[in-house]
Amino acid sequence: MDQMNTQKPHELLADTLASEMEAVNALIQTRMASKHAPRIPEVTAHLVEAGGKRLRPLLTLAAAKMCGYEGDDHVKLAATVEFIHTATLLHDDVVDESGQRRGRPTANLLWDNKSSVLVGDYLFARSFQLMVETGSLRVLDILANAAATIAEGEVLQMTAASDLKTTEDIYLQVVRGKTAALFSAATEVGGVIAAREAAEVQALYDYGDALGIAFQIADDLLDYQGDTKATGKNVGDDFRERKLTLPVIKAVAQATDEERAFWVRTIEKGRQEDGDLEHALELMAKYGTLEATRQDALGWAAKAREALEILPEHPIRQMLSDLAAYVVARLN
Amino acid sequence: MDQMNTQKPHELLADTLASEMEAVNALIQTRMASKHAPRIPEVTAHLVEAGGKRLRPLLTLAAAKMCGYEGDDHVKLAATVEFIHTATLLHDDVVDESGQRRGRPTANLLWDNKSSVLVGDYLFARSFQLMVETGSLRVLDILANAAATIAEGEVLQMTAASDLKTTEDIYLQVVRGKTAALFSAATEVGGVIAAREAAEVQALYDYGDALGIAFQIADDLLDYQGDTKATGKNVGDDFRERKLTLPVIKAVAQATDEERAFWVRTIEKGRQEDGDLEHALELMAKYGTLEATRQDALGWAAKAREALEILPEHPIRQMLSDLAAYVVARLN
Repeated sequence: MDQMNTQKPHELLADTLASEMEAVNALIQTRMASKHAPRIPEVTAHLVEAGGKRLRPLLTLAAAKMCGYEGDDHVKLAATVEFIHTATLLHDDVVDESGQRRGRPTANLLWDNKSSVLVGDYLFARSFQLMVETGSLRVLDILANAAATIAEGEVLQMTAASDLKTTEDIYLQVVRGKTAALFSAATEVGGVIAAREAAEVQALYDYGDALGIAFQIADDLLDYQGDTKATGKNVGDDFRERKLTLPVIKAVAQATDEERAFWVRTIEKGRQEDGDLEHALELMAKYGTLEATRQDALGWAAKAREALEILPEHPIRQMLSDLAAYVVARLN
Repeated sequence: MDQMNTQKPHELLADTLASEMEAVNALIQTRMASKHAPRIPEVTAHLVEAGGKRLRPLLTLAAAKMCGYEGDDHVKLAATVEFIHTATLLHDDVVDESGQRRGRPTANLLWDNKSSVLVGDYLFARSFQLMVETGSLRVLDILANAAATIAEGEVLQMTAASDLKTTEDIYLQVVRGKTAALFSAATEVGGVIAAREAAEVQALYDYGDALGIAFQIADDLLDYQGDTKATGKNVGDDFRERKLTLPVIKAVAQATDEERAFWVRTIEKGRQEDGDLEHALELMAKYGTLEATRQDALGWAAKAREALEILPEHPIRQMLSDLAAYVVARLN
C-alpha cells in the first residue's frame, strides 16, 4: 500500500476519469438551473461547489469504464447519483438541525429549512428525469429501490438511534440506508448499462455495498478512537448525541445488569454526567468491542476487494480495490 | 347541473370506481408498511386516513376506465399519484409551518419536522418503485416531469410569493406546480397505459391541466369572496400571509403610483394595518379583478370540458365534465 503515500486511491480515480467528471459537472450545472427560481441553483451550488470527494459519481464512472462501456449514459447516471446524494444532504441537515457541512454553514442556516426541503425535492425530481433519459428500466428499478432503502434507513435511524433494542442487523440496515445503498446502486448501474452478465453486475453491487458498509463502520469507530485533527470530529460525539453505533451495540449485548442501567441512563434517557464517556470507553475496552468493530470493518473491506475478482482486468479495478483498502487503512 | 343537488361529481366518480379505489387503498396500506420503522405507516396513515377527496387517484382510474383499459396498472398508478400527493403535503406542512390539515393537527406537530421530511421522502421513493413496476418508460417520463414541475413550482412560490414583479405567467407556473401538474399527469398516464392515440393522450393531459388550474384559481378567488363557513378559511388569509394571487396580481398590474405603494407596504414589506384588507378589496373592485379572475377560472373550466370532446363516449366522461363545471360552480 506504499503508493498511497503519494496519491490516494480516490484522487487517482478522479485523475483517471477527469474528462468524464468534467462532463458530469457540466451536466449538473445545466440541470440544476431554473429559469424563474434562482434559489434552486443558489442552494445547490452552495453544496455542490463545496466539493467533497464526489465519490459516488466516480464509482459509477469507474464501474462503467472498467466494464468497457462506450456510451454517454454513465455521465447521466453519475450526475443522477450526485443529485440524489446532494438532496439527502439537504434533507439531513434539516433533520439533524446541523449548522455545518464540509466546513461551511449549511443551506438551512444560510437560507432556511424551507429552501433545504424544497430544493432537495427538486434535485430528487431532477435525478429522476435524468435516469429516465437512459431508457433502462433495470437502472430505474435499481435506483428506485436504493431511494427507498435510503429513506427507510433514515427513518429507522431517527427512531432506533437511542433505542437499546437496536441489534447489529438493524444497525446494518441503517448503514445501508445512510451510505451503502447509494454506493451499491452507483456501481451496479455502471455494469447494467455496460450490459455485463448477471454475476458481474452482482459483483459490482457487492463491491459497492461492502465498500459503503466498511466506510460507515470505520467512521463510527473513529468517533471513539479517532484523531480529532484528522477526522474533524471530537471523540465521543456519537455518545453525546446518544447515537447507538456498532461499538456500543456490541457492548450493550454483553452488558451486566448494572452496565445496562448505565447505557439506559446515558443513551436511552440521555442523562449524561461528567466521566460517562470515559466509563463508556472502559466498557467497550472490557468487551473488546472497538477491536471487534475494527475486525468487522476490515471484513467488509476484504469482501469488497474479493467481489472485484471476477470483474474484467483493468487499471480501474486496482484503484477500486485500493479504495476499499484505503477506507479501513486509517484504522490501523 | 341539477343532478349535483343529489350527488357531487367526485362522489359519483368515487361510487362508480369503488372497487378499484378499494384496490388502491389496499395497495397503499401494503406499500406504506415498513418492517423496522413503524413511524412510517403511523405518519402516513394519519394523513391517508384523514381522507380528503382522493381526487388524484380517482382521476387516474377514471381516465384509464374511460379509455377502455383492462389491466391492473391503473391501480398502481393511482396509488403512485396519491403517494406523491401525500409526500408533498408532508413537506408543505414543514415549509408552511402549518398546524392543521384537513381539520386535524399536522404530522409535523404530532411528531416532528424530521418525521415529516423523512416519511415524505420515503413515500416519494415508494411511488417511484410503484411506477417502475408498470414497466412503461412513457409513464415514468410523465411522472418525472410532473415531480420536477411540482418541486420547481413550490420553490417559485416560496421566493415569488411576496414579490410584486410576479406576473400572471409566473402565477400560472406556481399553480401548475401546486395543483395542475399532478392532475394532468394523473389523467395522462391513464390514457398512456390504455395505449390511446397521441391526440387523446394530449386531451387527457389538457383536461387535467385545465381542471387543476380552474380549481386553484377558484380557491384563490374564494379566499377574497368566499363564505367562511363553506370554505373553512377566513376571507383575506392570503392577503394577511402576503401571498400574491391572481386577484392581486391583476390589481398591481393596473395600479397608480399611490396604489402601488400600498401593495409594496402591505405585500412586499408585510407592514399591514387595520383597514388594509378592506382597502385591498376596494382596489380589486375598482379594477374588477375579482370578476376578471372569475372569468379566468370559468375559461379554464370550459377548456377542461372541451378537451374531453374527442375522448370516447363513456358515462365517466360526463362525470369528468361535470367535475370541471363543479369546481367553478361555487363561484356563481
